[in-house]
Amino acid sequence: MRVHIIGTGLLGASLGLALSGRGHTVTLEDTSPTAQQLASDLGAGEPVAPAVPVPGTAVPGTAGDSPGATTSAGEGIDPDIVVVATPPDVAAHVIAAALRDYPRATVTDVASIKTRLLETVRGLVTADQLDRYIGCHPMAGREKSGAISARPDLFTARPWVICSDDDTPASRLREVVEMAEATGASVTHLDPRIHDAAVAKVSHVPQVVSSLVASQLRHAPLDEVALAGQGLRDVTRIAASDPGLWTQILSGNAEEVRTVLLALRGELDSLIEALSLGPGSTGAIARAIAHGNEGHDRIPGKHGQAPTAYAVVTVLIPDTPGTLASLFKDIGDLGINVEDFRMDHAPGRRLGIVDVSVMPANANELETGLQALGWRIPESAIEKEGTT
Amino acid sequence: MRVHIIGTGLLGASLGLALSGRGHTVTLEDTSPTAQQLASDLGAGEPVAPAVPVPGTAVPGTAGDSPGATTSAGEGIDPDIVVVATPPDVAAHVIAAALRDYPRATVTDVASIKTRLLETVRGLVTADQLDRYIGCHPMAGREKSGAISARPDLFTARPWVICSDDDTPASRLREVVEMAEATGASVTHLDPRIHDAAVAKVSHVPQVVSSLVASQLRHAPLDEVALAGQGLRDVTRIAASDPGLWTQILSGNAEEVRTVLLALRGELDSLIEALSLGPGSTGAIARAIAHGNEGHDRIPGKHGQAPTAYAVVTVLIPDTPGTLASLFKDIGDLGINVEDFRMDHAPGRRLGIVDVSVMPANANELETGLQALGWRIPESAIEKEGTT
Repeated sequence: MRVHIIGTGLLGASLGLALSGRGHTVTLEDTSPTAQQLASDLGAGEPVAPAVPVPGTAVPGTAGDSPGATTSAGEGIDPDIVVVATPPDVAAHVIAAALRDYPRATVTDVASIKTRLLETVRGLVTADQLDRYIGCHPMAGREKSGAISARPDLFTARPWVICSDDDTPASRLREVVEMAEATGASVTHLDPRIHDAAVAKVSHVPQVVSSLVASQLRHAPLDEVALAGQGLRDVTRIAASDPGLWTQILSGNAEEVRTVLLALRGELDSLIEALSLGPGSTGAIARAIAHGNEGHDRIPGKHGQAPTAYAVVTVLIPDTPGTLASLFKDIGDLGINVEDFRMDHAPGRRLGIVDVSVMPANANELETGLQALGWRIPESAIEKEGTT
Repeated sequence: MRVHIIGTGLLGASLGLALSGRGHTVTLEDTSPTAQQLASDLGAGEPVAPAVPVPGTAVPGTAGDSPGATTSAGEGIDPDIVVVATPPDVAAHVIAAALRDYPRATVTDVASIKTRLLETVRGLVTADQLDRYIGCHPMAGREKSGAISARPDLFTARPWVICSDDDTPASRLREVVEMAEATGASVTHLDPRIHDAAVAKVSHVPQVVSSLVASQLRHAPLDEVALAGQGLRDVTRIAASDPGLWTQILSGNAEEVRTVLLALRGELDSLIEALSLGPGSTGAIARAIAHGNEGHDRIPGKHGQAPTAYAVVTVLIPDTPGTLASLFKDIGDLGINVEDFRMDHAPGRRLGIVDVSVMPANANELETGLQALGWRIPESAIEKEGTT
């Protein structure tokens, strides 16, 4: 398959690495020649010649009116698929240009919002061109951006949402599915509106709220912030995300995000009212936390399966080189698979608390086995948890 | 030291385990004889005789008026310190009773809210009795409750906040500090109001907001919730917490929590307004995320030190028994200390993505070393992160 990738940031470069690694022919294009070359040097594909003015066609002051005034950056290539992996705020125009420049190719993108993008593209292209466009959203990313953070396995086992419709030719849909599966992603088909409503709930609103919680710490004295525990750390981890990118994402899905935030604010208002401690307040507060339990229980477990109850065995270890090694060596020697693990941070002391999640049937064996080998396991350390 | 613990749930029983393990004499008391016996069986201390009616003093219909109608549960013991570790909503009355019942003892507690509790206690006891009370809040806990979840190291390296004032006799303060330090906790002195404002920000509001985000998933179809990534999982982990306990905590610190929630709602309202995409909206959205960055950067790193930038090396591993063991064995053999690690969940596939955090100086050595040993490390997998 010949794939042309426009935009060589984290997603574009990662896609190039993944497809090149499987033997597909990948060409790369970016408005930044430096970014384009970096992605190419990393092995993501072959760079195309940068766009240059065509001598004799560029008339000063009229360049904007003459679409033929520059060569197409990808002139001379004939891709099966063009993937637009630019920042979301320019994606629609780049998609439209790609549909014009590559009249044979299927054009897709990786933007995290789909409805507004599709509407904008629809306004820019012909109906025939639109039939060659299939919006996608691979649900992969990192807190870090740029080709330098790219990895060939970025999409592996992640959901790759494809938003096709009844007018999409089956052969073009097959191409896009094939490409997505070549990255190791799990393909999911969703209507654009349903996609946007879903990501508002599972991605955009959690980002907003994490930022709002962290924002309340801006002016708190450091000795007060020092009381922070794992709960705060977890809730605010994604508050470190890039404001520029998230401004584009939130603006692009503004209506759906707003809808969810308004629902959330309604519940927040009820809780704030309840905290005046008038009649019925206890029930209202308990209900808010119980509703959270209910929503939490719907989040699927590891590997995308239904929620699984793992058993957690806690081990206390000195925080020194080799100790984790020995621990996992011993667990491996017991023949028990670790489903998940978490190391708890211990303020002011170099001691690690490791929670090891295993299938419930293995928990007693693991505890007994580790204790026999001299590991420190607190009393009653085995518990069940609804895994998320 | 002779310590009497009233309330043998997670905190009381853990404290008993910690102090007994250091050779202190611990007695245990709980309104539930079963809970009291369980904590004792686990090694948390000696149970006292349960409270029984004293024959001849209990007059039907007047029991409430005769304070001497039952024996004190702890009759015959003479503790240096009494620790009230009951649920927060009954703590004040139990503290007042303890100040009366044990006229020689210093009385302390472990409740997570301090101002309202102190006010209530003040209304129940004499000034002399009040001088023997020193409020505390060990910042330790788990999502699971009860003596069965207790562990002797629950307080190890956690902040233990002590709220004394100028009237507190130095000798009594020393006793409480000594006990707290015997559990391995890091003692911090704070004014009750400052404590309550701080925990509203770093603990209570994050809990509320996590619950509110999870609540929005209650009615979302499961195939939409299946798009959840690590961000949602982190933000909603504590949404699994116990509604009963949190109702008491939030009610007890209602004013401070309400103040922070109102500030948060102000910022939420601005963001909701900005999502109408009127003039200036882009700046307002970017500012909300940037403010989150700013607050996030104030949260101290592991071991309570100032935020440290670790380097993260990512390794891809098959999710089979023994693989983690080999990985950590190899890292240990390289002589490199693991500062933190995280396993990323891979939906629909049994492949683990392990992020290993190490001191930046060790990152290249670790990457080169692991690659030489055949581990799969994606291109450019080393990145710096502000650790939290």
